[in-house]
Amino acid sequence: MSLPDEFHELARKVNNWGRWGDSDERGTVNLITPEAVRRAAATVRSGRRLALGLPLSSGGPQTGALPGRINPLRTMVSLNEPITGDPAQACFSDDVVVMGLQAATHWDALAHASYDNRIYNGFGAQTITAAGAGRCGIDKIGPLVGRGVLLDVARARGVDVLPGGHAITVEDLEYAVDLAGLRIEAGDILLVRTGQITVLHRGDRLGYMAPAAGLSMLTVEWLHRHDIAAVATDTMTFEVFPGERPDLYLPVHLLHLVEMGLTQGQNFDLEELAADCASDGRYDFLLEATPQPFSAGLGAPVNPVAVK
Amino acid sequence: MSLPDEFHELARKVNNWGRWGDSDERGTVNLITPEAVRRAAATVRSGRRLALGLPLSSGGPQTGALPGRINPLRTMVSLNEPITGDPAQACFSDDVVVMGLQAATHWDALAHASYDNRIYNGFGAQTITAAGAGRCGIDKIGPLVGRGVLLDVARARGVDVLPGGHAITVEDLEYAVDLAGLRIEAGDILLVRTGQITVLHRGDRLGYMAPAAGLSMLTVEWLHRHDIAAVATDTMTFEVFPGERPDLYLPVHLLHLVEMGLTQGQNFDLEELAADCASDGRYDFLLEATPQPFSAGLGAPVNPVAVK
Amino acid sequence: MSLPDEFHELARKVNNWGRWGDSDERGTVNLITPEAVRRAAATVRSGRRLALGLPLSSGGPQTGALPGRINPLRTMVSLNEPITGDPAQACFSDDVVVMGLQAATHWDALAHASYDNRIYNGFGAQTITAAGAGRCGIDKIGPLVGRGVLLDVARARGVDVLPGGHAITVEDLEYAVDLAGLRIEAGDILLVRTGQITVLHRGDRLGYMAPAAGLSMLTVEWLHRHDIAAVATDTMTFEVFPGERPDLYLPVHLLHLVEMGLTQGQNFDLEELAADCASDGRYDFLLEATPQPFSAGLGAPVNPVAVK
Amino acid sequence: MSLPDEFHELARKVNNWGRWGDSDERGTVNLITPEAVRRAAATVRSGRRLALGLPLSSGGPQTGALPGRINPLRTMVSLNEPITGDPAQACFSDDVVVMGLQAATHWDALAHASYDNRIYNGFGAQTITAAGAGRCGIDKIGPLVGRGVLLDVARARGVDVLPGGHAITVEDLEYAVDLAGLRIEAGDILLVRTGQITVLHRGDRLGYMAPAAGLSMLTVEWLHRHDIAAVATDTMTFEVFPGERPDLYLPVHLLHLVEMGLTQGQNFDLEELAADCASDGRYDFLLEATPQPFSAGLGAPVNPVAVK
Repeated sequence: MSLPDEFHELARKVNNWGRWGDSDERGTVNLITPEAVRRAAATVRSGRRLALGLPLSSGGPQTGALPGRINPLRTMVSLNEPITGDPAQACFSDDVVVMGLQAATHWDALAHASYDNRIYNGFGAQTITAAGAGRCGIDKIGPLVGRGVLLDVARARGVDVLPGGHAITVEDLEYAVDLAGLRIEAGDILLVRTGQITVLHRGDRLGYMAPAAGLSMLTVEWLHRHDIAAVATDTMTFEVFPGERPDLYLPVHLLHLVEMGLTQGQNFDLEELAADCASDGRYDFLLEATPQPFSAGLGAPVNPVAVK
Repeated sequence: MSLPDEFHELARKVNNWGRWGDSDERGTVNLITPEAVRRAAATVRSGRRLALGLPLSSGGPQTGALPGRINPLRTMVSLNEPITGDPAQACFSDDVVVMGLQAATHWDALAHASYDNRIYNGFGAQTITAAGAGRCGIDKIGPLVGRGVLLDVARARGVDVLPGGHAITVEDLEYAVDLAGLRIEAGDILLVRTGQITVLHRGDRLGYMAPAAGLSMLTVEWLHRHDIAAVATDTMTFEVFPGERPDLYLPVHLLHLVEMGLTQGQNFDLEELAADCASDGRYDFLLEATPQPFSAGLGAPVNPVAVK
Repeated sequence: MSLPDEFHELARKVNNWGRWGDSDERGTVNLITPEAVRRAAATVRSGRRLALGLPLSSGGPQTGALPGRINPLRTMVSLNEPITGDPAQACFSDDVVVMGLQAATHWDALAHASYDNRIYNGFGAQTITAAGAGRCGIDKIGPLVGRGVLLDVARARGVDVLPGGHAITVEDLEYAVDLAGLRIEAGDILLVRTGQITVLHRGDRLGYMAPAAGLSMLTVEWLHRHDIAAVATDTMTFEVFPGERPDLYLPVHLLHLVEMGLTQGQNFDLEELAADCASDGRYDFLLEATPQPFSAGLGAPVNPVAVK
Repeated sequence: MSLPDEFHELARKVNNWGRWGDSDERGTVNLITPEAVRRAAATVRSGRRLALGLPLSSGGPQTGALPGRINPLRTMVSLNEPITGDPAQACFSDDVVVMGLQAATHWDALAHASYDNRIYNGFGAQTITAAGAGRCGIDKIGPLVGRGVLLDVARARGVDVLPGGHAITVEDLEYAVDLAGLRIEAGDILLVRTGQITVLHRGDRLGYMAPAAGLSMLTVEWLHRHDIAAVATDTMTFEVFPGERPDLYLPVHLLHLVEMGLTQGQNFDLEELAADCASDGRYDFLLEATPQPFSAGLGAPVNPVAVK
C-alpha cells in the first residue's frame, strides 16, 4: 500500500533529487558555501564556546525500547598498567566503547530512511547492506560548519517546554525568527528548541521520548524554501511524536532525508545555548558540527560546538 | 626503581600543578581565552574547511598489537526495516559500533598516563577505577576550539616523511615556525606534521606504528614556554618511537599529560591540510577539535576541523 | 565497618579455604570425582535431552538497571556476502555479539564476589584487575559435568511460584528431596526451582528481578554438609531478594563464593525440566554445564543440558 | 555463472531437503535419537572429562583478516565495587564481552552459507536479514549431545600434522576408523583431527589459518552414507584450504550446510583428547556440545565436553 496522496504531493514540492548532480550524496549541506562559512566566522564576538552534545555514558537517553540503540557502554582495557612492570614508571589506562551510533546526540545519515525502495537522490535502498550505506553514508557529509541559528520556539511561545505532541507550525518558526531578530539565509544550520530535553535532565527517559513536540509536515516547505543546510532539535524523535496522522509513520524523516537530502540532528542539548542567547540577544553563531566519520555509517555521534 | 634524575629535573621545570587551582582537571586548555578564540575566528578568510579525522572503519590503523584498541567495528541492527511492515512506507536502517576510544584520531585524556601513583595536578592514580577516570577524564576538557597552527616539520626539513625514530628538536620546530611565517601565541593549538601518516595511507600499518619520528624530551620545554594549549601529531605514538633513551618509556607522555596537563592528539591526518597551507602560504586557521564527551573516558575520538 | 558476628560465625563453619590445597582455584567442583561422573552417566535412561539456557537475545532478562549487564546484542557483519562476487556461488553470513557475561544463564566465577579484601581460598581481592580475575576466574572451573538433581521447592510446597522475598529454608530443601525420592550425594549439582522464571516468561522483567525467593543464610550449612559441587536457581539474584537482614547485602554470595568456593548459577530455566521430572518421577540426570572458557572471566554464559 | 556440473551432481546425491519435513531447520542433528543418546551414555567408563574449547581471550586465533570475526574482548564493568560503599562488606566484579560468534570454537548455523539464493531445506536466502537468520539459526539446533567419535586422521597416517592443503580422502577416514577400532553408527558426531591446531598452539596464527588440511569434496558422500549427525575439525576453515579446485570456493560448506543440513564445527582443540584416546585405546565417548543459544545466530560458541 502506498503513502497517501497528500504526502506524495508535498514530496514533489520539496524534492531535491538531481539538484546537485546525479551522483550527489550530500544533499543540502551543499548549500554551505565558502561565503556562508565566512559569514559564520563573522558572527564570533565574545569568544564564548558552548558544546551541545549529551554526556556519552550508560546513563544516556536510551531506554532499551529500540534494540541496538544502546547507550554508550565504556569499559576499561587497562588500568594504570605499568608498562615496564614498575609503577614508579609509565603507567597507562585505556578504554573501549560500544554504542548505538544514534544513541545520543547525532546526525542521521541521508541513508537512514528509505521508502518505496529509494533513498535520497533516487539511489536504491538495496545499496544499504550488512556493510552499511553504500550510498549517502554519514561519512559523505564531510565538514559541517556554518552559521548556526537558534530558533527558540519554546521561548518565543512563552513556555519552558512545548506541549507533548505539538506539531510545530510555520507560525511557530516565524515567531522564533522574530525573537532571534535576524534573517534566515541560505546555508544556515537551524537548531530548533522545544525544551523537551529538560524532561530528560529531570531523569524521565520515557517521558523524554514521547510525547514530544517536533517539526512536522507543516514546516517542511518552509525549510525547503529557506534553503536550510541542516536542522537539529532537542528531542529523541526529531519530528512530532506521536505523529500528525495515523496513516503516516515519521513522514518528516522521509521528506527531509529521502526527498530533500536534509541532514537531521537529534538530542542536541540546547538549554545552555538558549540561556546564553536570551542573555545577550544574539541567536546566531559559528556552529561546528561535523559528524564522526564512520565509513558507510547510517548515523554518527556529534558534539556540536557553538562559538559566539 | 625511580625514573632517572634528568627526567625529574625536566619534570620540575615544566610542571603546571596548581597553576589553575588545586581542583583543575583541564590543564593547558585553560590557556584558550575568549580573546584567543576571537583571534582564531579572525583567521578565517577563504571559508575552506578541512576535516582531519581518519575514516572510522575496521580498516583503521590498529594492528591488534594493543589488545582492546580495536579498530571501529560498525555493524547493522536494522536494514531497511519497514516500520509498518510495508516497504512502500517508512523503512529505517541503524547501526552500532564497538571501538577502542584511542583506536583512531583521538585526544588522550590527562588521566591516560600516570607514574609514581600520580596523574595531572597531583591527583592520585587510584582515582582511575573500572568506572573510568574519576579525575581528569576526557569529558572535563569541554569545548576545544582556538587558533590552530600547522608546524610542517617535514616540509620545513625538505622531506616527505621525517626519518623513523627521529626525535624532533627545537630547531625543527623553529624551522617550521619560520615556514609558517607567524608568531606562536599563548593558547595556540599546534599540529606537528611528520608525514608519517602517509605510511598508513600506503597500507603499511606496521610501518606506520614504528619506527616513527615524533616530539621528544627536547621539545617539552619549548611547548611549555610558548604556553601551547594542546598539541597533536600525525603518528600513532605521538612521541618519537622507539624512544630516545633505553631507560625511559614514553617519557613525553608523562611530561605532557602528568606534569603539564597538556592534552595530546594522535593520528591526525594532516596531509590535505599541509597541501592547502603550502598552496596559500597560510598556516593558521580556526581549529574546532572538541573531543566526544565520554564521561570519565581515558581518551576520545575527535574529527578535528580546520576552517581557513 | 565489619559484617555482623552472626555472619562471621556462619562463615567460619562453612569455610573451605585450604581444603583442596593453598593454590586451589576451583572450590567445590573438586567434589565431582570420576566416580560421581560415572554415577551421573548411569542415570541416563530415556535419552531425552533438555537445554536450560535462556535464549540469548536483546529480549533477555536485563532491564538496564545494572550498567554493563547488557542483554546480548547480536548484529550482522556480513549477509549473504557473495565471496566470488557471484551470488550463484558461495555466500556467507556472519555475526558478532556484545553482552554482559552474566546477563543471561550463567555461572558466577568464584572471583565475582569479595569482601574484606579477600576472595575464595584467601587470595587477595587485588588479584582482580582491569585484565580480569588473576585468580579464581571462570576458566579455572574446567569441565562441569556430573549428576544433576532438581530440587523443585515450588512443587514440593504446592505452588507455581514461591512468594517473592521468601527465604528458602532447610525444610523447603528437604521437602524437595523427598519429592525427588533420592539421596543427595557428595559432588551432586543442585538445581533449585522457585518458579520465579515464569514471571520473566510472562514478560515482566522488573517483577522477575525482585522480589524473588531464593537460597538464604538458612541453607548455607546444609549445602556445605552435603558437599554440593555447584548450585543454580531460576532467579536473577540467586539468593532471596530483598535479603533477610537489612544489615547484610547478598550475604549468600559471600558465603558461597568467598568462603566455600561454591560455584553459583543464575537464570537457569527449569520449567521444562520440572515438567519432565514431575511426569516421569525421576529428578536426577546427567548434567553437562561447563561454562564458556573466558580467560580470567568473572562469570560466563552456559547452556546447561540435562540428559535423562 | 553457476557452479560446475560436478558440484551439482554431488549436491543432488547428498541432498537432504525434505527428509525431515518441509519445515525442518535442524538437518542431520535429527539423527541423534534417544537410542543414540543412551548408547552415548553407555560409553562412559572412567569418568574422565575433557573440554575441547579454545580459551576465549583477545589472544584467540583471529588475525584481523576477517573483519568482524574479532577475538573475544572481555573488559571490566565493575571491579571489587563495594555495594554498600564499605569494602569490608560485599564487593562485586563484573565483565562484558564483544566477540565474533565464529571467532573461536564454534558451530556454524545451517544458515551460515547460501548459494543460488537458497539455504538448507530450500528456504530462501532472503530469510536472513539484519535481524539474523529467520530460518535455520543456530538456536534451532537445540541440545547437541550424543556419541562422539574421534577420527584421528593425523595419527592414523603417522604424522603430527597433516600436510597443509591436504584434501582428506575416504581412505584417510577409514584408516582413522580402523585406528579407533569401532563401527560408525547413524547419529554419531565425528571429530576429525588433522593436528593443525598445534600450529596455533605454537603461536603461528597466520600459519594456522592456511594452508590447512581438511574435509573435502571426496568425503561428503561418505559422511552422508554414514548418517553423521554433526562433524567438527581442529582447523579454522573446516574444509581443506586452499581448496581442491580453483573454480570452487569452500564447496564443502555448501554441500554440508546447504544440501545436507550437516552442522559443522571449527577450531575444536582435539590434542588432549587425542592423547587420551591413544592412551586408553578408546575413541568413542559421550559428547555434549550444545551451541550457545543465540536467537537467529549464524553460528555460536561452544565448549564441547567429552566424557569417557
